[in-house]
Amino acid sequence: MKPYKEMSREELQSLKTELDKQFEDAKGKGLKLDMSRGKPTPAQLDMAMGLMDALNSGSDMKTEGGIDTRNYGLMDGIPEARRLMADIMGGVPMENVIVYGNASLSIMYDTVSRSYTHGVLGSTPWCRLDKVKFLCPAPGYDRHFAITKLFGVEMITIPMTPAGPDMDLVEKYVSEDPAVKGIWCVPKYSNPQGYSYSDETVRRFAALKPAAEDFRIYWDNAYAIHHLYEDQQDEILEILSECEKAGNPDMVYEFASTSKVSFAGAGIAAFASSKANIEEAKKFMTIQTIGHDKVNQLRHVRYFKDMEGVKAHMRKHADIIRPKFEAVLSVLDEELGGLGIGEWTRPHGGYFISFDAMEGCAKAIVARCKEAGVVLTGAGATFPYGNDPKDSNIRIAPTYPTAEEMAAAADLFVLCVKLVSVEKLLA
Amino acid sequence: MKPYKEMSREELQSLKTELDKQFEDAKGKGLKLDMSRGKPTPAQLDMAMGLMDALNSGSDMKTEGGIDTRNYGLMDGIPEARRLMADIMGGVPMENVIVYGNASLSIMYDTVSRSYTHGVLGSTPWCRLDKVKFLCPAPGYDRHFAITKLFGVEMITIPMTPAGPDMDLVEKYVSEDPAVKGIWCVPKYSNPQGYSYSDETVRRFAALKPAAEDFRIYWDNAYAIHHLYEDQQDEILEILSECEKAGNPDMVYEFASTSKVSFAGAGIAAFASSKANIEEAKKFMTIQTIGHDKVNQLRHVRYFKDMEGVKAHMRKHADIIRPKFEAVLSVLDEELGGLGIGEWTRPHGGYFISFDAMEGCAKAIVARCKEAGVVLTGAGATFPYGNDPKDSNIRIAPTYPTAEEMAAAADLFVLCVKLVSVEKLLA
Repeated sequence: MKPYKEMSREELQSLKTELDKQFEDAKGKGLKLDMSRGKPTPAQLDMAMGLMDALNSGSDMKTEGGIDTRNYGLMDGIPEARRLMADIMGGVPMENVIVYGNASLSIMYDTVSRSYTHGVLGSTPWCRLDKVKFLCPAPGYDRHFAITKLFGVEMITIPMTPAGPDMDLVEKYVSEDPAVKGIWCVPKYSNPQGYSYSDETVRRFAALKPAAEDFRIYWDNAYAIHHLYEDQQDEILEILSECEKAGNPDMVYEFASTSKVSFAGAGIAAFASSKANIEEAKKFMTIQTIGHDKVNQLRHVRYFKDMEGVKAHMRKHADIIRPKFEAVLSVLDEELGGLGIGEWTRPHGGYFISFDAMEGCAKAIVARCKEAGVVLTGAGATFPYGNDPKDSNIRIAPTYPTAEEMAAAADLFVLCVKLVSVEKLLA
Repeated sequence: MKPYKEMSREELQSLKTELDKQFEDAKGKGLKLDMSRGKPTPAQLDMAMGLMDALNSGSDMKTEGGIDTRNYGLMDGIPEARRLMADIMGGVPMENVIVYGNASLSIMYDTVSRSYTHGVLGSTPWCRLDKVKFLCPAPGYDRHFAITKLFGVEMITIPMTPAGPDMDLVEKYVSEDPAVKGIWCVPKYSNPQGYSYSDETVRRFAALKPAAEDFRIYWDNAYAIHHLYEDQQDEILEILSECEKAGNPDMVYEFASTSKVSFAGAGIAAFASSKANIEEAKKFMTIQTIGHDKVNQLRHVRYFKDMEGVKAHMRKHADIIRPKFEAVLSVLDEELGGLGIGEWTRPHGGYFISFDAMEGCAKAIVARCKEAGVVLTGAGATFPYGNDPKDSNIRIAPTYPTAEEMAAAADLFVLCVKLVSVEKLLA
């Protein structure tokens, strides 16, 4: 079929009649699928059930250093879990890692909240400043933007490229505006595009010359080990050491978790940063908590053992979710290839495919899908304030449904893309 | 022996010579004991090891409503855990309960922090106010005071009585000063005195007429089910329903956890409050976290089953720690009874015994104990800003050492009390 934009009005009209009919048929199928969030599928969770046997009533509950994980203490996490999370984050020294509870999002919230109430290493608390700004590479992760929005932070959209955020713009804002206090990054298999930052991008991050002494890179390494393929794996430079080399040791906060390794709701999360930043976080932690769940930390280490164990586990994850990505991509290729009404990413890892529709079509496509029983992430969610200026980006989360459901959902999705595009061209 | 204050200078001198000698002997014993924190002893933790078998790789991981605890979702906790925590809090409706992660202290910190950054049900955020004050019944829990201190809250000491805080003073401050935004309470088996609030005290709390619309009672029900005796159990009125009856439904935040029921570092914690307060907390939670560890919630419910299971478990706890309390009390009775140099509480539950030395002696007693190898909670820690105006109160935490160690530590403690008191009287 030829590109829609080359079609005559009559061709478009007759196409619309056909698509309308297909859409009515699709509605009749009573689909009920959710592709809105990056949720692991039950088969992935089943695979980690050995975790539940890693500790039993006969287990030695002590750390390698002899500390009882069941009792209070060890604010920064058990050493073996710090080592494992350090490895997952690409070889950060374990001294630079604190292991927290079950959600890295909570650590990010907490870090922003603490900066707001108490400042960063002695700088003015953000609540005492007239204006605080964050750079938000977009499309990006809606939950990042929700945190900064909640604290009244002004969010500035930075365009994404396949090599990472537009670094010319990042450098300009960071070096010129002392109100810019942070930037949200998902450096590897980015949410939603699946892009990984190039070495040059990482080095330019590390070499930033911030106007604000309390500027920090929020480096959410959520998909550090979440490859889809054995033979096509993205790797990124380790940011902590790059920052140190560039003379900016305190400039980055890194976050990671096992939410998409073990259990989405019951994993362990970690924070990595410079010695000074770690010491500051711990100073607050002694007031904020009696420590995180060390038993679950021990359970994870006993189960996965080491990085090799984690990698083997992640290969099994890939085997489960790769067919779903491929099911979506093959429908997109076959049905939309050459039509000029959409572009999409082909990630080597992560949890999402990013789809860009014709301008002004995303909201309508999501609405149409919903009408026929397929829930997508709300259009606009991938931009600060939920506002996609082009109304174009849609995040597809293929992991939760089965491959068959995913194919059915993708069929509906492409149908809606075609229909809305035709309507747009006719309008 | 006669009261020290009735002794002549000569008698005191010769007593001091004898006590000095005993102290030197004691130092020679090389004691190394920690009575500084309310830590469960390994035997208590061992008792809960069945918790590690409550879930295994063959377990159904779904809630009673069919939700997979391993995945994202159920922000307010699994229903069966909400019900259990509601029962532990003395019969709060489960709809008024949110189950969190492993530490109620984190919920308290979070609640203060959120009030500071975003206010309470629409009131002015505390960070925008010139002055915020908290009432602090004292002696009290040092970690409460540490939270409010961190947020620059002015802390006002309220004297404690065996029936609870001095309510005349509480009523006066709360009704007259709109800067008073909260009060820290441990209503049952209070930390450190082991006092439980009388029905009249609870009703007066519920009937407060705050000058500030955002005044809240921080009701830390940490020892709700932590009885030492079968036949002498304190009970307190359920504060949420009392507040509702008194027309103040939103005035209380209640906190509890299983830290001293299951594992100190890996239990589950809960927050209970009115519908409006719960809704507000959940609104923030959707931004702050992907949810708490529901697998650990499920593990707790599968292990304890219900309130009867919890009560049976707590009876075994009592059997382990009661002898330690009694060992301390019998040494105090025998060695200090009638000397007029100290008073102490005889709690029916909780984790502490509170000791009041002669004015100006607490710091010196703690220092002497430390010199001979017994670490006590720092003198003053039980008061806001770590400042006990009388330098008199010492918190004794008898749970962690064995009964034999506890007796040895108590022997040293009374020796130090005698020695410091004699020195004080001679000075």
